[in-house]
Amino acid sequence: MPLHPDRLFPAEPGARAVARALYNSIKQLPVISPHGHTDPAWFAHNLPFANPAALLITPDHYVYRMLYSQGISPAQLGLDAVAEDNQRGNANPPAPEQVWQLFADHYHLFQGTPTRLWMDHVFSEVFGMNEVLQSSNATTFYTTIQDQLQRPAFLPRALFQQFNIEVLATTESPLDPLAHHGALMSIDWPGRVITTFRPDPVVDPEFAGFANNLHTLGELTGQDTATYGGYLEALRRRRHFFRQHGATATDHGHPTAATANLSPTQAAVLFAKVAQGTASAEDAELFRAQMLTEMAQMSVDDGMVMQIHPGSFRNHNRWLYIHYGRDRGADIPTPTDYVRALKPMLDRFGNNTDLQIILFTLDETAYSRELAPLAGHYPCLRLGPAWWFHDSPEGMLRYRQQVTETAGFYNTVGFNDDTRAFLSIPARHDVCRRVDCAYLAGLVSQHRLSEAEAYDIAHLLAYDLAKKAYRL
Amino acid sequence: MPLHPDRLFPAEPGARAVARALYNSIKQLPVISPHGHTDPAWFAHNLPFANPAALLITPDHYVYRMLYSQGISPAQLGLDAVAEDNQRGNANPPAPEQVWQLFADHYHLFQGTPTRLWMDHVFSEVFGMNEVLQSSNATTFYTTIQDQLQRPAFLPRALFQQFNIEVLATTESPLDPLAHHGALMSIDWPGRVITTFRPDPVVDPEFAGFANNLHTLGELTGQDTATYGGYLEALRRRRHFFRQHGATATDHGHPTAATANLSPTQAAVLFAKVAQGTASAEDAELFRAQMLTEMAQMSVDDGMVMQIHPGSFRNHNRWLYIHYGRDRGADIPTPTDYVRALKPMLDRFGNNTDLQIILFTLDETAYSRELAPLAGHYPCLRLGPAWWFHDSPEGMLRYRQQVTETAGFYNTVGFNDDTRAFLSIPARHDVCRRVDCAYLAGLVSQHRLSEAEAYDIAHLLAYDLAKKAYRL
Amino acid sequence: MPLHPDRLFPAEPGARAVARALYNSIKQLPVISPHGHTDPAWFAHNLPFANPAALLITPDHYVYRMLYSQGISPAQLGLDAVAEDNQRGNANPPAPEQVWQLFADHYHLFQGTPTRLWMDHVFSEVFGMNEVLQSSNATTFYTTIQDQLQRPAFLPRALFQQFNIEVLATTESPLDPLAHHGALMSIDWPGRVITTFRPDPVVDPEFAGFANNLHTLGELTGQDTATYGGYLEALRRRRHFFRQHGATATDHGHPTAATANLSPTQAAVLFAKVAQGTASAEDAELFRAQMLTEMAQMSVDDGMVMQIHPGSFRNHNRWLYIHYGRDRGADIPTPTDYVRALKPMLDRFGNNTDLQIILFTLDETAYSRELAPLAGHYPCLRLGPAWWFHDSPEGMLRYRQQVTETAGFYNTVGFNDDTRAFLSIPARHDVCRRVDCAYLAGLVSQHRLSEAEAYDIAHLLAYDLAKKAYRL
Repeated sequence: MPLHPDRLFPAEPGARAVARALYNSIKQLPVISPHGHTDPAWFAHNLPFANPAALLITPDHYVYRMLYSQGISPAQLGLDAVAEDNQRGNANPPAPEQVWQLFADHYHLFQGTPTRLWMDHVFSEVFGMNEVLQSSNATTFYTTIQDQLQRPAFLPRALFQQFNIEVLATTESPLDPLAHHGALMSIDWPGRVITTFRPDPVVDPEFAGFANNLHTLGELTGQDTATYGGYLEALRRRRHFFRQHGATATDHGHPTAATANLSPTQAAVLFAKVAQGTASAEDAELFRAQMLTEMAQMSVDDGMVMQIHPGSFRNHNRWLYIHYGRDRGADIPTPTDYVRALKPMLDRFGNNTDLQIILFTLDETAYSRELAPLAGHYPCLRLGPAWWFHDSPEGMLRYRQQVTETAGFYNTVGFNDDTRAFLSIPARHDVCRRVDCAYLAGLVSQHRLSEAEAYDIAHLLAYDLAKKAYRL
Repeated sequence: MPLHPDRLFPAEPGARAVARALYNSIKQLPVISPHGHTDPAWFAHNLPFANPAALLITPDHYVYRMLYSQGISPAQLGLDAVAEDNQRGNANPPAPEQVWQLFADHYHLFQGTPTRLWMDHVFSEVFGMNEVLQSSNATTFYTTIQDQLQRPAFLPRALFQQFNIEVLATTESPLDPLAHHGALMSIDWPGRVITTFRPDPVVDPEFAGFANNLHTLGELTGQDTATYGGYLEALRRRRHFFRQHGATATDHGHPTAATANLSPTQAAVLFAKVAQGTASAEDAELFRAQMLTEMAQMSVDDGMVMQIHPGSFRNHNRWLYIHYGRDRGADIPTPTDYVRALKPMLDRFGNNTDLQIILFTLDETAYSRELAPLAGHYPCLRLGPAWWFHDSPEGMLRYRQQVTETAGFYNTVGFNDDTRAFLSIPARHDVCRRVDCAYLAGLVSQHRLSEAEAYDIAHLLAYDLAKKAYRL
Repeated sequence: MPLHPDRLFPAEPGARAVARALYNSIKQLPVISPHGHTDPAWFAHNLPFANPAALLITPDHYVYRMLYSQGISPAQLGLDAVAEDNQRGNANPPAPEQVWQLFADHYHLFQGTPTRLWMDHVFSEVFGMNEVLQSSNATTFYTTIQDQLQRPAFLPRALFQQFNIEVLATTESPLDPLAHHGALMSIDWPGRVITTFRPDPVVDPEFAGFANNLHTLGELTGQDTATYGGYLEALRRRRHFFRQHGATATDHGHPTAATANLSPTQAAVLFAKVAQGTASAEDAELFRAQMLTEMAQMSVDDGMVMQIHPGSFRNHNRWLYIHYGRDRGADIPTPTDYVRALKPMLDRFGNNTDLQIILFTLDETAYSRELAPLAGHYPCLRLGPAWWFHDSPEGMLRYRQQVTETAGFYNTVGFNDDTRAFLSIPARHDVCRRVDCAYLAGLVSQHRLSEAEAYDIAHLLAYDLAKKAYRL
């Protein structure tokens, strides 16, 4: 049986008993998923998922970057290449059963990784498989899962309910018509699927297609996005449109945490260069920096929570980017400064108690050195959870062990699953709940917290903090 | 009962028994407090502390930065603002009982933090309270503490004795007349309260009031501090004056660890710019760098131990700095280089076995990468303890786990409480003693040390190393 | 008895039992030592080691840097100084017995360090001493060890067999005639001692004697090393020569991980400056960067595994360098970027599944932030083990805890002892095997791996991965 009921709890029996009791008190709480990348079309259309490979392997960076690191090509995994005419295709696509077998043959690569924990959870809890996947049972897994995916209980909306999800946020470009969210608002289904405003395509001058995006932004809003005033007004209108489709938060994925606080005139001059396509790399960085501060101003005005996650070197693998496009698992973290980078924005808004800014990091050295001291001081700042490469049990524990001493629990915001792998959402929240309970059990067994306090905090971390921080 | 006798020991019963035995062997050792920020006037005047809020909350950065991070204003906590005429005041100051209630209402913010450990210790061990502070018992806490503060046993000198403090170092500016230390030397009280020479106000050209400070330094010493020679001689004389008031150490809080080794001519030219107020930011940094090396030379000459703690971005919150002044809990750590920064000074003095330089860090990544390798090689270097944001149980454990492998125990210097919260001194030393014993118990239970060795090392860490390193 | 059979296993009895069982299953596996610095002359000549001090203290950086840090001079330890005429000598050399006594008198300095673990292992397992070394038994240790060193069972080849070493790699300059390896190939002894190609002396323009080295390289190969083409061909020929002497790997110790991908013309122009001695520091860095990429090309061609270990500030202590020469324990790690630094080389070869590049670090912050994400994606990359300052039990555990979540086990390469202390090789592998089993026992006791899986992985980490990664 791959899923032991005491998994991830401390080995020492006393601490384990505390962890188990804490976990039992919160394991049934609804899932708050305020930051993720699932496809709203799934819930709008409610069609069966295509097959196990298309559902669980092909779209999951975590899975195929590991297979790729051991010499398995994207084509073998069924990914479509980008041809010279910009058409996507795979001349000789593998059957999904072949992809699945390849995955099973290499399932040992995931030993010790969070992917293994999530996959075992999905296989066992969602599909009722009671073995560990391996070469010899790959076909059984495939056919059993494929069979279930055709049943009503495995349609997206049914799974949403079964997963006990209270709210699920997706992430969309400002240019997205939000048709699926609109459709979901108009039908009689109680599931709450909201959008998140992710403006990177229209605030990052180095984003592919930026000039076209500016133009489209103008068309969507009736604003002259060739002027800075028109551009800002267009953004305000799209934020309003997103608010109408449930958004309570914005999300900003920048290479660095740089912010700027230019005068309106300086900002307009900079925007002119950006809009005309004459911006240098330094101009682009400064413009992104300025836009974080502008976004903070708009958040003060419209109440949207602001998420900043800097520090990823995107599309690091040139060959892969050319042949398979962006977001293929080759984003690599870099050292990230927050202290100097955020100062211009904090000088302007740092003491505003109405503003809520959630900081993420891919550079764990910032936890104790920069992020906890900043969030443990500035009223507008909160810390996002251990995330992306760091949402492993070890990473979550490092987060608590390095953040709590200075920022406490109340300057953190609960868990984000941050996933496009819908079926793994319960697994990911379950891992976090178990690790948080293990951490709290450690504090209890070292007599740093009473058990009564630990029960309260476990509830807080699993549910309340996320609702409050994201204004849900 | 908030204080469990086994707090902070490992959960596993075997290791816990070892930790408890080690701790019992050293818990009664006198407190050596070689680096801190208590007010010598307390001991010179020996007057009752004003009230619980003024004693435990208002002066403690650790406490009010956390309350501030959750939206409580400095004014609500009784801090005086700086008006435009530079006068400090609080038009509508809260009663100390109100401040105390606010603190109690938010005591949950400190769950999991070292402040919680220290406060629980003070409440329980100093004032005999046997509950955890909360909204409903805030008044009882206040009145009980306030009542005790009026009694002779709670006067500063009585507490000093009760706390079993063998020596307590305070920290003063070179311009300080050391009147309280002088008074203490002339009275019949056995408590040893010594000063520490902290020259930042006269060696940092960017320190507020630097020009006036230079002038005052000249007046105090009869030297012409407009010349480099006169300036250095003035510093030598103030060091001598501090030595006469018990100082065995200097303390240097610089933005970076940069050192320089200019020729006398270059240094004099640089000083001229600094003295005339025409130094650029780069000049100021170079001057601070040069002054660390000059201070090392003076330490070679007069035997004072040198403490360097770089890496804090001071007064990061502009609004708070303008309205409430410096040192208000908004100092944020930054990445800190030691390897290149210290080389000029080490090229000159690194192999001098008479010199003792104690390095601190706010950038924990330097522990295993830079500081332990440097201190595990250069005879003049020792490592200060986990400190400031990192004097939590987790931070102390990270320190031992990252430093010992390369620097051993003998290149470390025991514990610093580094506090202006006098009543928390026993609590802070107790936490460190417990964590060190827990760490040693781990080594014993993994059969890396014999128990006999662990007893010796526990004594060393709690007492001997600090006395030896600070030449006390 | 200094060596407990359960040393380094977890304290909790359940996890300890798992660790013990895992360890017992792999402790007898042969030692694969693919990266180290032992002297091949020992095995070629098979003469007795001179004495305990010359064998265990004088050549070991780990040992004497710690003694030096506490004020013991290199001369007291028997090191030869470099006089002004470049002759080495020690006017008044201590007797080896004196050096040994000094070491014993200071053996407490190593408490908590890996050196202590290795030394205790050597004393107990190799020489049968059953006490911890101290001042009072120093003479007994010395004479007992000295006596044994004269016996046939303690000759280098006999120890090699007794240590169960399957293959041992040494490291040589491209200018080395490999006479000892040649001799070993021609004799009837089954021990496998291979060389490793370490080209720093001829690819680093800042290496002492670089110009002479270029010249010698030309003479050795009959190539005109004043031209870039001749230089590259000379390197190819020396690689071939090393391959003939068993080498399967190259080793590159650069100040940074910088790589470059210049055009052939640009590279030739740069080489001309380097060869003529007119290269600036920036030129030298760029040349080293270019040479990593050239070496990768040669590895694609000849199949040699490439090891890169950047980030050491070499010979940091100026006085020591002047008076005692290079490699005296004063190499200090520095922050090291991999993401931007490696990109030029990865753009060219990153997706080549025939190439194997093993990355090392002295900057542990790169484990989770850069190295695991890079190795968990690029097919050519693998991660070298915790190493140098970080091959302590704590360092090895940090490595697994920060690398596994993203890179798994299969993107790592097993253990390197990296030592010139031949007698410590079994001790070092034993420590790593124990720590890896302790780590795996933690995963098993948290129900993240089955015991059956853990047995397989323990075998993999102790033996298979090293053989495969180094193509042995």
